[in-house]
Amino acid sequence: MAINGVLRPGHVRLRVLDLEEGVKHYRDVLGLQEVGRDAQGRVYLKAWDERDHNSVVLREADEAGIDAMAFKVADAATLDRLEADIRAFGLSTERIPAGEMLETGERVIFQAPTGHHFELYADKTDVGNGMPYTNPEVWVQDQKGINPVRFDHCLLYGPNITEVEKLFTEVLGFYTTENVLMEDGKSNLAVFLSCSNKAHDIAFVMHPEPGKLHHVSFLLESWEQVLRAADIMSMNRVSIDIGPTRHGITRGTTIYAFDPSGNRFETFSGGYQTYPDNHPITWTFDQVGPAIFYHDRVLNERFLAVVS
Amino acid sequence: MAINGVLRPGHVRLRVLDLEEGVKHYRDVLGLQEVGRDAQGRVYLKAWDERDHNSVVLREADEAGIDAMAFKVADAATLDRLEADIRAFGLSTERIPAGEMLETGERVIFQAPTGHHFELYADKTDVGNGMPYTNPEVWVQDQKGINPVRFDHCLLYGPNITEVEKLFTEVLGFYTTENVLMEDGKSNLAVFLSCSNKAHDIAFVMHPEPGKLHHVSFLLESWEQVLRAADIMSMNRVSIDIGPTRHGITRGTTIYAFDPSGNRFETFSGGYQTYPDNHPITWTFDQVGPAIFYHDRVLNERFLAVVS
Amino acid sequence: MAINGVLRPGHVRLRVLDLEEGVKHYRDVLGLQEVGRDAQGRVYLKAWDERDHNSVVLREADEAGIDAMAFKVADAATLDRLEADIRAFGLSTERIPAGEMLETGERVIFQAPTGHHFELYADKTDVGNGMPYTNPEVWVQDQKGINPVRFDHCLLYGPNITEVEKLFTEVLGFYTTENVLMEDGKSNLAVFLSCSNKAHDIAFVMHPEPGKLHHVSFLLESWEQVLRAADIMSMNRVSIDIGPTRHGITRGTTIYAFDPSGNRFETFSGGYQTYPDNHPITWTFDQVGPAIFYHDRVLNERFLAVVS
Amino acid sequence: MAINGVLRPGHVRLRVLDLEEGVKHYRDVLGLQEVGRDAQGRVYLKAWDERDHNSVVLREADEAGIDAMAFKVADAATLDRLEADIRAFGLSTERIPAGEMLETGERVIFQAPTGHHFELYADKTDVGNGMPYTNPEVWVQDQKGINPVRFDHCLLYGPNITEVEKLFTEVLGFYTTENVLMEDGKSNLAVFLSCSNKAHDIAFVMHPEPGKLHHVSFLLESWEQVLRAADIMSMNRVSIDIGPTRHGITRGTTIYAFDPSGNRFETFSGGYQTYPDNHPITWTFDQVGPAIFYHDRVLNERFLAVVS
Repeated sequence: MAINGVLRPGHVRLRVLDLEEGVKHYRDVLGLQEVGRDAQGRVYLKAWDERDHNSVVLREADEAGIDAMAFKVADAATLDRLEADIRAFGLSTERIPAGEMLETGERVIFQAPTGHHFELYADKTDVGNGMPYTNPEVWVQDQKGINPVRFDHCLLYGPNITEVEKLFTEVLGFYTTENVLMEDGKSNLAVFLSCSNKAHDIAFVMHPEPGKLHHVSFLLESWEQVLRAADIMSMNRVSIDIGPTRHGITRGTTIYAFDPSGNRFETFSGGYQTYPDNHPITWTFDQVGPAIFYHDRVLNERFLAVVS
Repeated sequence: MAINGVLRPGHVRLRVLDLEEGVKHYRDVLGLQEVGRDAQGRVYLKAWDERDHNSVVLREADEAGIDAMAFKVADAATLDRLEADIRAFGLSTERIPAGEMLETGERVIFQAPTGHHFELYADKTDVGNGMPYTNPEVWVQDQKGINPVRFDHCLLYGPNITEVEKLFTEVLGFYTTENVLMEDGKSNLAVFLSCSNKAHDIAFVMHPEPGKLHHVSFLLESWEQVLRAADIMSMNRVSIDIGPTRHGITRGTTIYAFDPSGNRFETFSGGYQTYPDNHPITWTFDQVGPAIFYHDRVLNERFLAVVS
Repeated sequence: MAINGVLRPGHVRLRVLDLEEGVKHYRDVLGLQEVGRDAQGRVYLKAWDERDHNSVVLREADEAGIDAMAFKVADAATLDRLEADIRAFGLSTERIPAGEMLETGERVIFQAPTGHHFELYADKTDVGNGMPYTNPEVWVQDQKGINPVRFDHCLLYGPNITEVEKLFTEVLGFYTTENVLMEDGKSNLAVFLSCSNKAHDIAFVMHPEPGKLHHVSFLLESWEQVLRAADIMSMNRVSIDIGPTRHGITRGTTIYAFDPSGNRFETFSGGYQTYPDNHPITWTFDQVGPAIFYHDRVLNERFLAVVS
Repeated sequence: MAINGVLRPGHVRLRVLDLEEGVKHYRDVLGLQEVGRDAQGRVYLKAWDERDHNSVVLREADEAGIDAMAFKVADAATLDRLEADIRAFGLSTERIPAGEMLETGERVIFQAPTGHHFELYADKTDVGNGMPYTNPEVWVQDQKGINPVRFDHCLLYGPNITEVEKLFTEVLGFYTTENVLMEDGKSNLAVFLSCSNKAHDIAFVMHPEPGKLHHVSFLLESWEQVLRAADIMSMNRVSIDIGPTRHGITRGTTIYAFDPSGNRFETFSGGYQTYPDNHPITWTFDQVGPAIFYHDRVLNERFLAVVS
């Protein structure tokens, strides 16, 4: 297979301060589908065009933030191989049995040098996208809310960016698509990594506090859908951080906004297709403004300060 | 690497009846950049956002059509391995030395069971997309013509679809994303194959005559760019086959049109992202209309009959 | 007032072969809102962003087609003045009392030289667009179907184009924006007329049979909405005549399709803003192809032949 | 004529601090066409799809701002009638002879109660939009810069909003489409006025200092063109005030930015079509945030403070 190893971001487990308020946001405003609740009270959701059972899992907690981000891998043998490689890299791993999460197989969990928990799994039940696999239509009518296509990526804040980039590129098969340099012109303030043709499947920003979430991102199909998303956010009094605008990094068009618990989420569209043989793009520290917000060419103060 | 083996469609070598007329079309109307001419008189072009030196090579000949489609592979070791695998599959291969094509490394060439020539190569000079790799802008001003982002895929017509699907999936690492069944409900009329997250990198339609080209496809960034492409075609009296419309297969939005030599080309946008673990989509013979042209729900007579 | 006299196309009264089938089409697929039914069994609908009570009235009959197209005028005095002017032009008029149509004031009705019935009225109840007149949002959530913004214009087929252009320009205050010449290079095959900044509020094509309908048109907000309309038509097996495409005339982007009774309707977007001091645009007979269908540059056979 | 009296905003005369720097901005970045320079050194420009000779006139001065905004009226008789009506309203008028501005007829000039100078004229040479009036294409290739369709409207700041609304509605034939109330809930902070189907042809905001310019606005054809405009502004280091975003008022999508002299300009798209019989929309003082910037729902501090 020309695509193997880690396939894609599969699910993200988020903490919200009030579960029903969170469900209302992710289901009724963002427009994910609620697909189940488990015995622990966790709520499972998916975007309409995802075929696997779930991609967002909400848990009520005293503090907002991210419990874990998970990647689907090609198969069980890959899961075993990657677990061995992660251990060889020097990290400890743990196996969580199949079924601990609804419709999800055994998971290998580990903590990255940035303090974030990551999960790998090979199985999640295919529940389809609401259309048959024989003679489907092109989309599903009677959709509600912003209605993204899929959970796309996370941007995470924590220390040890160099080590985490090494982990993702040397062990997990990702490649670096873009990086932002610190003032010293040498070390990285931020690094963007892909395991696919997408401009990023995960990204990290250097931050003293470990394990923080900058944003969880959801894919829209066009710039017009980005406008529609901003309209729906306004109608529902969702707090928009910035946007609609464009990133210099990845060239994607975007809105950042906050869920009711203060977790930042992104609805975005576009960006280039890339490949591992592509020369990475580097942004110098003085150009971090256009790198992040291409139109304004300056960071808003919240970008570096507000994480959950 | 999560992406390895065959990376992507790299270049296509086309025959045109009149070289300068062909250059005028691909450069001035389609908006590719002319990047060189070689001693044989071949003209090399690339789309603006491609970084490798060339993706379309035109040769003057008495008959229009396709000489070869080429894929870039991850590295020289991959090239060796794939050559061995192709031979083990029962096909003969040939090595064409580096430099036979401008700025392009050694190529492995072989003829597929459909009669088409394919090439694999690991090296092509990175000439960039007109923007620096440090602090780039998001696109290049002063572009002309339809201005696609990249050469994207080919749809080829020929016999032995089953064998060619086996070659691409078992040897070259592609996976089947969609297929169209014959009237018998069993064998394939058409098969769509991906080596990436794209809904197709190559496709084949069953056809008695070997080695024929249905279309060469170029990627646009939005449905509005598809409209703009149709406008520019009309302004330049390019013969449009069909479109703007949408395919049921891949969900892409599209225009088919003909170059002055009668080679069909496509400018398209959109379509879903996919992965090798996704269940393929099947279209039954009676639904070939919406599969190909989702809005009209019937094939135009030219779709099956006119190839070059 | 800089805008006075005839304000806009206000409603169209259509005949359908099966009332409930027609309602299902205009309400559930096109996405108009059903706003009432009267004692005669007529069904009244409006587009979401229209503020007056109704814009489409369906009546069951043995033959499809158009009963009348109506224009709203500035006020009662304008209604009186225009009635006198129409009579002075040589046509007879009739008054239909207020209330004969739901929520609609007194109407002046007359038959134009093309055989079509037109109505003028000054009053129709303002029922709003679902948003308050104080602090509204920008659109209404929970919409269904294609969901056009408004009933926009009609294209009508009949004899005596010269006389009807005279009537609309000299009596009703319209101006000619574009015309298509017959083979003789002198008389008009088609004429496009505006009473506003819109490229057309009504249009006529020369046709031997009087009183025929070519299409009723509904406005969409973007080319992406035109794509969405075509998708919805396909999902609902609406018969598309042509499109998505663009007109040379008005530059609008468009789909023509048929309701279940065979009445052609259009969903379109765009086109230029114009003014009465603008020089009209003329299309010669040999360029009628790009004038009507700019991308294909040829008429399909149905354009001139199929009317209801 | 259903449209008569004042037809449309025709030209705006602006002051810039450095003429060539201003020309470079309006011609090369905004993408207007330079159509002439006069003996006074003024530079004349037009947008590509405007047919009259000029719509923006630049003059070098020590202070940025607006010299005058001008409206084209239907004909010479209308000019005479409106001049008489303006005088009857209590304002003095002056005639500026034909030819004082290039390709422009006699102008009636007067100062409104807000301190702004307005001009009316009936004649300006039709130079076309670069396409013939017989068998045109749908747009002109080889365009540069942001390339708006037309000069659309101005938003002006000054005192005596009530009087100026009275002048525009009672004398000049405009109608009020939207207004924003002051904290008292009675008097107007802002008023939006139309002489057409456009949601606004001019707007005023209450401000103690007379004769100030908030922005000059240029029309784009789509939300995608708004994105492209923001990209081009960033590439050319144009200072963006806010956007891309949407207004609650008019529903238009927009960018505000500054020319090199500090004059704010807008590139916008969309907004509803309206008519004089439409009930005006009112925004209360506490909702001025979403009224102006629908997505952020708060004014940025520059909106009320920075004028030229």
